[in-house]
Amino acid sequence: MAIQHPYLLFLGDAPDQLAAKTAQGIAHWRPDWCLGQLRLEGCQADLGLTDMSLEEGAAAGAKTLVIGVANRGGVFSEKWISVLEQALMLGYDLAAGLHNRLADVEVLKAAAEQHGRKLFDVRHPSREFDVANGQKRSGKRLLAVGTDCSVGKMYTTLAIEKEMRARGMKADFRATGQTGILIAGSGVSIDAVVADFISGAVEYLSPANSADHWDIIEGQGSLFHASFAGVSLGLLHGAQADALVLCHEPTRSHMRGLPDYPLPTLKACMDANLAAARLTNPAAKFVGIAVNTSQMNEGSVEAYLRRIESDCELPVMDPFTEGVAPIVDRLQ
Amino acid sequence: MAIQHPYLLFLGDAPDQLAAKTAQGIAHWRPDWCLGQLRLEGCQADLGLTDMSLEEGAAAGAKTLVIGVANRGGVFSEKWISVLEQALMLGYDLAAGLHNRLADVEVLKAAAEQHGRKLFDVRHPSREFDVANGQKRSGKRLLAVGTDCSVGKMYTTLAIEKEMRARGMKADFRATGQTGILIAGSGVSIDAVVADFISGAVEYLSPANSADHWDIIEGQGSLFHASFAGVSLGLLHGAQADALVLCHEPTRSHMRGLPDYPLPTLKACMDANLAAARLTNPAAKFVGIAVNTSQMNEGSVEAYLRRIESDCELPVMDPFTEGVAPIVDRLQ
Repeated sequence: MAIQHPYLLFLGDAPDQLAAKTAQGIAHWRPDWCLGQLRLEGCQADLGLTDMSLEEGAAAGAKTLVIGVANRGGVFSEKWISVLEQALMLGYDLAAGLHNRLADVEVLKAAAEQHGRKLFDVRHPSREFDVANGQKRSGKRLLAVGTDCSVGKMYTTLAIEKEMRARGMKADFRATGQTGILIAGSGVSIDAVVADFISGAVEYLSPANSADHWDIIEGQGSLFHASFAGVSLGLLHGAQADALVLCHEPTRSHMRGLPDYPLPTLKACMDANLAAARLTNPAAKFVGIAVNTSQMNEGSVEAYLRRIESDCELPVMDPFTEGVAPIVDRLQ
Repeated sequence: MAIQHPYLLFLGDAPDQLAAKTAQGIAHWRPDWCLGQLRLEGCQADLGLTDMSLEEGAAAGAKTLVIGVANRGGVFSEKWISVLEQALMLGYDLAAGLHNRLADVEVLKAAAEQHGRKLFDVRHPSREFDVANGQKRSGKRLLAVGTDCSVGKMYTTLAIEKEMRARGMKADFRATGQTGILIAGSGVSIDAVVADFISGAVEYLSPANSADHWDIIEGQGSLFHASFAGVSLGLLHGAQADALVLCHEPTRSHMRGLPDYPLPTLKACMDANLAAARLTNPAAKFVGIAVNTSQMNEGSVEAYLRRIESDCELPVMDPFTEGVAPIVDRLQ
């Protein structure tokens, strides 16, 4: 599965900017791939890209119309479907990361077949995987792990890829979730894989490579999340990570979606991840801590970061405000 | 999903006794459910049950024909299919734990619909599950965990259920694999669930119950198995186990299927399982160690068991040769 770019980003009739956050992520991390945005009547989101019709996008060379917006109530409206069908007729592939599948909409499935176009439902694995074999692969790997879900793993790993590439290092972001896949153009939605094949899917996602190449693997969930830890452990084993980055959001009062579950301490979280990671790579170690400080009182951020840095003896930063140079320094 | 009994056990044209080990497990643990065996020409397996034709089984009251034998090369032969179709016509449901599905055989699917019968492909979950909520459920739970895969978890948990019931305790074996499901008549093949829902499926499998009721959960894999540990961790979290039993096979030279991976020590394995289990049940503790001694030199067994018992300060036994009374003593 490789989604062809450049993209035209479909924002539909997004009720607000937040509804288009997938498109926003794509435009932020892959500006060169995004020719423009397609907005329907009533759309309240704006990425600051050139507004284009399907015809204008096609003329400019767009290969894929990416649905970068949540669909209200999880259904594809008639308005959307007619635009998406038109896109297939004009030669676009379609890509979406929604729960329901483009391929389950009969008219889109038929139009894709008729016009020889592809439908990418990136939340749903399109292939079967082997069971993990646990064998050491050449090349280097970094994996983001978290104290919780949704604490900035994707942002952190994309920032590390960008910083490494800026320094001329060989690095590829490896996407494990739907937004990441649309940004990378490929990847595996790891939480949608059949349980027996979690680690095997990660081995597939991050194959053997040249010795100086880094795979920067997005990561998913947390070993301390009572709903999803199995995914995180399978990821950790399949990744065979040389380097781990801990991602943390300090204002969470409990694990996401689980009001009765407190967050682990950073130390407990690092110890558990390190012990598990060393099953498949005894040399695994932490190389930094990425803190999402967006919800913190601004005046308290600096002292907080310096305190963790001193406690954990690792580079600590907010990738969004400070970048990730100190982590890449350690890896270079 | 509840498979109706009594069963007629289909042994097909099994080339040897080992090919029918699923049927053997069912006959061993649910003798009251097994009216007889159906053997085709050339069958080399024999469970010691009454040989019956489909007609004789139906007359005796059999509700389900259980395919308790591996199919050669993973395909259903013509010979099998004609017998299975005939069974549906005579009013049997069919149940199988094979990789390929009965429901994918057109003629069987059509016959089941026509005659209003059910096809149970127990290796493939037949429903969707919720994400785990991690909330404490009433009732008590025991889970078998292992140093490796295939070390006797199913045997151990079925033996505990049997011992508890013999003492008048309320206990239900909860199956997490295909043979276990055929023995229990229900369950979830946990390694075939989509990764996000592993723990949620276990919460479904082992719902709230009366305070003095024990769910005896089969377990799957090992936290130290580089291919499958994610399944084991999700199971551990979903089970919210009060009691853990460690299962071990001392003659393994490496983890099953992974020649480069040594087995963990019993202590490391117990420490890791306990730490993980306590995320969802802080009161989790080990109550015994079940050792599969079948491959050991007979003369060394007793000294080995007593040494572990002394090292770990827990009851240690081979459930097959000695039963599990000391474990149930602890729980009663």
